[in-house]
Amino acid sequence: MITGVQKQYVNNPHLDNMEEDILYHFNLGTKTHNLPAMFGDIKFVCVGGSANRMRSFAQFIHQQLELPGNADDIRDICEGTDRYSMYKAGPHGMGVPSISIMLHELIKLLYHAHCSDVMVFRIGTSGGIGLPPGTVVITDKAVDSFFRPQFEQVVLGKVITRSTELDKGMAEELLQCSTKLPNCPTVIGNTMCTHDFYEGQGRLDGALCSFSTEEKLEYLKKAHEAGIKNIEMESTVFAAMCRICNLKAAVICVTLLNRLEGDQISTPHDVLVEYQQRPQYLVAHFIKKHLTLL
Amino acid sequence: MITGVQKQYVNNPHLDNMEEDILYHFNLGTKTHNLPAMFGDIKFVCVGGSANRMRSFAQFIHQQLELPGNADDIRDICEGTDRYSMYKAGPHGMGVPSISIMLHELIKLLYHAHCSDVMVFRIGTSGGIGLPPGTVVITDKAVDSFFRPQFEQVVLGKVITRSTELDKGMAEELLQCSTKLPNCPTVIGNTMCTHDFYEGQGRLDGALCSFSTEEKLEYLKKAHEAGIKNIEMESTVFAAMCRICNLKAAVICVTLLNRLEGDQISTPHDVLVEYQQRPQYLVAHFIKKHLTLL
Repeated sequence: MITGVQKQYVNNPHLDNMEEDILYHFNLGTKTHNLPAMFGDIKFVCVGGSANRMRSFAQFIHQQLELPGNADDIRDICEGTDRYSMYKAGPHGMGVPSISIMLHELIKLLYHAHCSDVMVFRIGTSGGIGLPPGTVVITDKAVDSFFRPQFEQVVLGKVITRSTELDKGMAEELLQCSTKLPNCPTVIGNTMCTHDFYEGQGRLDGALCSFSTEEKLEYLKKAHEAGIKNIEMESTVFAAMCRICNLKAAVICVTLLNRLEGDQISTPHDVLVEYQQRPQYLVAHFIKKHLTLL
Repeated sequence: MITGVQKQYVNNPHLDNMEEDILYHFNLGTKTHNLPAMFGDIKFVCVGGSANRMRSFAQFIHQQLELPGNADDIRDICEGTDRYSMYKAGPHGMGVPSISIMLHELIKLLYHAHCSDVMVFRIGTSGGIGLPPGTVVITDKAVDSFFRPQFEQVVLGKVITRSTELDKGMAEELLQCSTKLPNCPTVIGNTMCTHDFYEGQGRLDGALCSFSTEEKLEYLKKAHEAGIKNIEMESTVFAAMCRICNLKAAVICVTLLNRLEGDQISTPHDVLVEYQQRPQYLVAHFIKKHLTLL
């Protein structure tokens, strides 16, 4: 029995007529798994691109929330498939198409599991524009390569445009949380989402490059003037899908380099690992606060 | 010392001026690794979306080519990172952005390693249109959601259009190889590449759906009339990048279902595993033939 509360998360009249729903890329199904029992308690969903990073985040948050059991034992709920991992926190691969598959199935999972009052966080890495490496950017607006706050989705050969507005309250509250943490320089700003890491982000070091250093810098400076603080590859579809499915959402990415100064990520591995923990600490602090553990 | 033979694979004047090139997502670099020694012998590169599938393909081809050493011991060359695996054969994640990062770094790797006469294969899975599940489709033209044989890349905020033509000789020779294999029904046809698995491929079972069953079928039938035999999510950028970088390339995907009959992949796991082996057998046969082992 699905109530109005849960139905808010999907926007598809066909789902009601399906006898079974197989979440193919998660290796889960409504007939093979008791989704309400497995996932009905979900209030916070954290997604990120890399499987290792999400595994260490799952262990970290397990410890932070003082949950029972051994943090090292966290079992991967999607272990039957190698495309995504899920510890009630899952990686989404790289790029808009990969995260969009995950979001469709995640949102259906929340629906089938009868979840309510869920908040979704994307924690990730990015290239910064005009910020010292290691700065955490909480996304105000997710914008496309033309600096527009929208996401274009092709449906049956027609282009549909969707808003990429994120939850302002969550962003402000996350910024507030950052002031309580040592070593977590944080700003709110616009995030540009591209479909390519090299040419699409104006890098000079791909297999292909048809522009000059001056043209690259001109583009990045224009982006900077449009309030863009960082560049990554998933935020527009993440914002658009969460918004249309009535999920409160936030994007929190650390910058690994300042793109006005270079293209290659040559910072030592241990420094990058420390940078990547910053969004995790911030989101963990937010979740703890909401669970009134602080 | 780079000769003209190797330089053909990249199309970027800036690479010559770089003191070091870090292939970030592969965890390899020109200063930290002897790339010519590690990879200079590469003649065939096989890429696919899923890490498990590529691992079993690496073991299979190791055995087929009667290479020395234990096939189970194949070490993952990119093991320092969890984004891609590489056994001189690597997975590329899902979607155009994910495979495009991999292709930039793969093509630079071939360049730095001084490789020549390389052929590249994408082996994958797809949704079929009007074909029995399990049919292998060798791509003639890779087309976009509007059935156009082109790939649009945004570079510094401007849209660049690239041809997605693949190597006709390789496609014909692969089709010829398929006739020598038992249980490997194979056709040549156009492949549609979309940026989304659900709405983008006209599926009725996503978290979002704004169209009717009739509208879905109308779109898929139009695609069928345009010579499209299957739908996947990487072929256009794969074809475009290989072509512009002078790499002979082929796309070989098995169909897991007939999209005119449904959206969900509900075929038993062991049947799907057998289907997924078909493109692997076909490419292994082709490679063996070229190495005159047959």
